[in-house]
Amino acid sequence: MLLMDQLTDVLNAISHPTRRAIIGQLANGPARFLDIAKPFDTALNAVTKHLKLLERAGLIERRKQGREVLISFRGEPLREVAVWVHEYERFWNQRLDQFEQHFRNKKKGKK
Amino acid sequence: MLLMDQLTDVLNAISHPTRRAIIGQLANGPARFLDIAKPFDTALNAVTKHLKLLERAGLIERRKQGREVLISFRGEPLREVAVWVHEYERFWNQRLDQFEQHFRNKKKGKK
Repeated sequence: MLLMDQLTDVLNAISHPTRRAIIGQLANGPARFLDIAKPFDTALNAVTKHLKLLERAGLIERRKQGREVLISFRGEPLREVAVWVHEYERFWNQRLDQFEQHFRNKKKGKK
Repeated sequence: MLLMDQLTDVLNAISHPTRRAIIGQLANGPARFLDIAKPFDTALNAVTKHLKLLERAGLIERRKQGREVLISFRGEPLREVAVWVHEYERFWNQRLDQFEQHFRNKKKGKK
């Protein structure tokens, strides 16, 4: 249940396009709050809320460096999402297999 | 942007534990609405809302079979989640590598 709730936090965190964009940005390296907020046409207040959700999910961490606070991306919580999704991999592969088979049969029919 | 919004719908859909449980249940085979609702201690109304979100994300489909409506799971939309997550795979592997290296060095030190 604990793990499940962590997964819920992570999925909630990545379910918003702005938060996925922040992750994409931080994947290039740590950044300061104002640099993170710059590309977005949103109130700073909204960015703060997005960062809180990302932090709660363990997807970012803050580190003091001199007088600055650097925010960096942590990828580990995404592993759990990958594990959950891959439990259902056979469902999309299955369909693809049927699809491929369909076209293979069609091709054969033409020959 | 269209794809991104679909990803948002799918992540929203799977971000709730009850909806993940419904997916887990339907992965065993199609079911009728009341069978889906049975394991959950929730109002039928709430289950209906969960199913609507899953349907919007393309994760379930309804099929009339005689007088019954069967609801079945569709896994394809999850592929997009897998693709998104795997863009960040290096971030969790990196850390694991460092972790392993740390223990390997520790072991060497002991010898």
